[in-house]
Amino acid sequence: MPNGPDSAKRLECGGLLALLLALGLLGAASVLAAEKALEKAPLIPPPPADFAQYLPAVGRLIQAATNSDLGFQRLAVLCDTFGPRLSGSTNLEGAIDWMLGEMKRDGLDNVRGEEVWVPHWVRGRESLELLAPIARPINLLGLGGSVGTPPEGIVAELLVVKDFADLQARRDKVKGRIVLFNQPFTSYDRTIIVRMRGAVEAAKAGAVASLIRSVTPFSMRTVHTGAMRYEEGLPRVPHAAISVEDAALLQRMQERGEPVVVRLKMEAVTLPDAKSRNVIAEVLGREKPDELVLVSGHLDSWDVGQGAMDDAGGCLAAWEAARLIRKLDLRPRRTVRVVCWVNEENGFRGARAYQADHRQELDKHLLAIESDEGVFRPLGFGFSGNDAAWARVRGMGSLLSGIQAGEITRGAGGGAADLHFLQQAGVPIMELRVDGPKYFWFHHTEADTVDKLSRDEFNLCVAALAAMSYVAADLPERLPQ
Amino acid sequence: MPNGPDSAKRLECGGLLALLLALGLLGAASVLAAEKALEKAPLIPPPPADFAQYLPAVGRLIQAATNSDLGFQRLAVLCDTFGPRLSGSTNLEGAIDWMLGEMKRDGLDNVRGEEVWVPHWVRGRESLELLAPIARPINLLGLGGSVGTPPEGIVAELLVVKDFADLQARRDKVKGRIVLFNQPFTSYDRTIIVRMRGAVEAAKAGAVASLIRSVTPFSMRTVHTGAMRYEEGLPRVPHAAISVEDAALLQRMQERGEPVVVRLKMEAVTLPDAKSRNVIAEVLGREKPDELVLVSGHLDSWDVGQGAMDDAGGCLAAWEAARLIRKLDLRPRRTVRVVCWVNEENGFRGARAYQADHRQELDKHLLAIESDEGVFRPLGFGFSGNDAAWARVRGMGSLLSGIQAGEITRGAGGGAADLHFLQQAGVPIMELRVDGPKYFWFHHTEADTVDKLSRDEFNLCVAALAAMSYVAADLPERLPQ
Repeated sequence: MPNGPDSAKRLECGGLLALLLALGLLGAASVLAAEKALEKAPLIPPPPADFAQYLPAVGRLIQAATNSDLGFQRLAVLCDTFGPRLSGSTNLEGAIDWMLGEMKRDGLDNVRGEEVWVPHWVRGRESLELLAPIARPINLLGLGGSVGTPPEGIVAELLVVKDFADLQARRDKVKGRIVLFNQPFTSYDRTIIVRMRGAVEAAKAGAVASLIRSVTPFSMRTVHTGAMRYEEGLPRVPHAAISVEDAALLQRMQERGEPVVVRLKMEAVTLPDAKSRNVIAEVLGREKPDELVLVSGHLDSWDVGQGAMDDAGGCLAAWEAARLIRKLDLRPRRTVRVVCWVNEENGFRGARAYQADHRQELDKHLLAIESDEGVFRPLGFGFSGNDAAWARVRGMGSLLSGIQAGEITRGAGGGAADLHFLQQAGVPIMELRVDGPKYFWFHHTEADTVDKLSRDEFNLCVAALAAMSYVAADLPERLPQ
Repeated sequence: MPNGPDSAKRLECGGLLALLLALGLLGAASVLAAEKALEKAPLIPPPPADFAQYLPAVGRLIQAATNSDLGFQRLAVLCDTFGPRLSGSTNLEGAIDWMLGEMKRDGLDNVRGEEVWVPHWVRGRESLELLAPIARPINLLGLGGSVGTPPEGIVAELLVVKDFADLQARRDKVKGRIVLFNQPFTSYDRTIIVRMRGAVEAAKAGAVASLIRSVTPFSMRTVHTGAMRYEEGLPRVPHAAISVEDAALLQRMQERGEPVVVRLKMEAVTLPDAKSRNVIAEVLGREKPDELVLVSGHLDSWDVGQGAMDDAGGCLAAWEAARLIRKLDLRPRRTVRVVCWVNEENGFRGARAYQADHRQELDKHLLAIESDEGVFRPLGFGFSGNDAAWARVRGMGSLLSGIQAGEITRGAGGGAADLHFLQQAGVPIMELRVDGPKYFWFHHTEADTVDKLSRDEFNLCVAALAAMSYVAADLPERLPQ
């Protein structure tokens, strides 16, 4: 959505501060000048003394990011030209080839695709028809990994339940029916349980297929896809999402005592694993090039919309951060490595392959960052690491207070899902935190398109990622691990 | 949309006040008691002395409306059972038959369908495919009354323009192309000009078809249909709407210099006029049954979604208002006549037929009311009539200050479109004004469904319509005309 006047205003102030920092501090380039400038702007907490030396470089990065068109234009070209990029699709491979070419043109180091074998699920045609009490089509979106139905479809009476507990309470009515989990949205983490495990619980109870109300706080008769799981030893039943509106319709019909009969058709099929690639590019460090800070997003998406928020924006912001560090010739002590992961959505095979292929150098990873909650106005970072590293990272965050993107909170989760394996290996991780209250309105739908993002907010994300990865890579002593 | 905490709170307060009015005033049932009650609530302006006698009746109507489930349940049954109700469709005729049966069951007087011949436009299958620079489907919704394309479709290069002025500026590029009017939403009234006249202007300039960006301030890749016109003596070119997202996509492609080619297929056809009916029911007046107050909504809708906001809600609220007047045995001096118009959306044939068939009694119409902006929390009424009537109507509005629905503003327009012909004949008209800021998000889309409405807000609309029509019908002297 277009941004309101508030965020535009904040942006202007942020841009102005960035410019002041950049102009005022580049000339003097001394801690003293930095401190004087900061005295004039008492609202901004001063960075610890050992970080103040980075104010000029951070100012230059912010200025370069907020005055650039290239990154956002490339984001639109990626989304418009290749569209959605599901693992195994030619769209994804086309996007990877294009990105590798552009990164080489930017003069980044060691640009390459690192092989990853990914699941290859293909949706095919699909439909849900209400047959009784009235005939009408219902919007449907199969969940990723679901099996299909027989070609003639499955015709069955529907049973609407609220959640797993309600399913248990009505267990005697489930056999031979299609179950609809009409669970209202609370938070994403709590609500996706029916999406992830609905087919398992439905099959356990004897259902022939499983439907869920789309996981979203808002709907325009919109269907949301997403990941799901089967369990060994249980029948694999088709599993799909319908809109909030249609779930409410079917609920009302059941409450009125009208028997509800539907026909579900899905051609969904899982093909043999396909070859894909994590996209990697670097700005090599000037002193210790084998030590590195990783900055990332994921390039794959679901097979609807453009995957603009989820997560072309994160990839492009990480890439653009590295490009600007390179362009400003801010070669840090250690390497900044951009990774655009594949297969975040349905398998984390990119993250797993990276972990396996780079196991010899995981201890050289000082910090890993991801942006995967939409490139909206950045607020700061969530951090997972030890206390000593936490203290250092907060100092680094204070360098971003000029654009109000410097708040470091404890804990990194959903926005850094690809970094899970690195975190397990002891690498401190961070997720970019953003002001995107409508993110889950669009998530995994045909409405996740680039027009929902703004150039100015994207550029602030670039600035935050560039500053954080540059400073972490350049610190005289590496982050405590 | 579910309502925020603010409106819920207002609702509770409104309900409480209504209850206090009803309980406190029913017992005493005197002007004195009413005035005392009002003294304790100084925020509510007291009604003029000659209206205070109506406080007990209004209190009873508010109490009955806000404690009822029936109207809202019927609204859901209508929407769920018959779905969208385009003029000429079996859905509309089924809804009319059902409504006539239920109205008779309610004991309303003179329940009947009055014959109206309506246009019969049928959408058929339709599609828009982007062929270059990339291949992808574009969401499409033909505009009501549009001609179709040849069966093989129309393949042409696209020209994106902003508005009619921009079309003129690029006039040399239009010939043989499909024009897309990518006009941003400002207000509904200003933005529908490209929907209404786009095909005319495109044809004048030599285009082979015309597309518009859907008329909406918000989109989830949602397409909005609506009315359009052709002009005698000009080629009739197909005219359809695409989503805001796809309009932005095609605009970006054009700006990048990428030639955009599309294939448009529409089976749309206009069949001979079909027979339909305005639904009419009455509470006959006890003294002057030939004089009447008309309260209305329109029963037809576009052929997508459920037409719940537009305008099943208005019909059901008008009907429920009459049912409650009847149920409480509040037989007014003059008749209250419910009218559920047909063909508001694409021809106003219901309104025209009524005007023609009732021309002998138009001077007996004291006041005509319509609700057609969604049955959200009512704010008051817009009024068109002379100054003397205006003063009286404001007094009547003060009776609704207990539910904060009594503000009377000057002018009735979009929410009383079916009353245009009555207004021309000198009848004072009113539209129900509501707090529905998201109305145009859902308007004429598949997302106009009953789950977006709330029982409590619907019931407040019923209360407002019931009170206003009852009091206007019962006044000792008829409203000045």
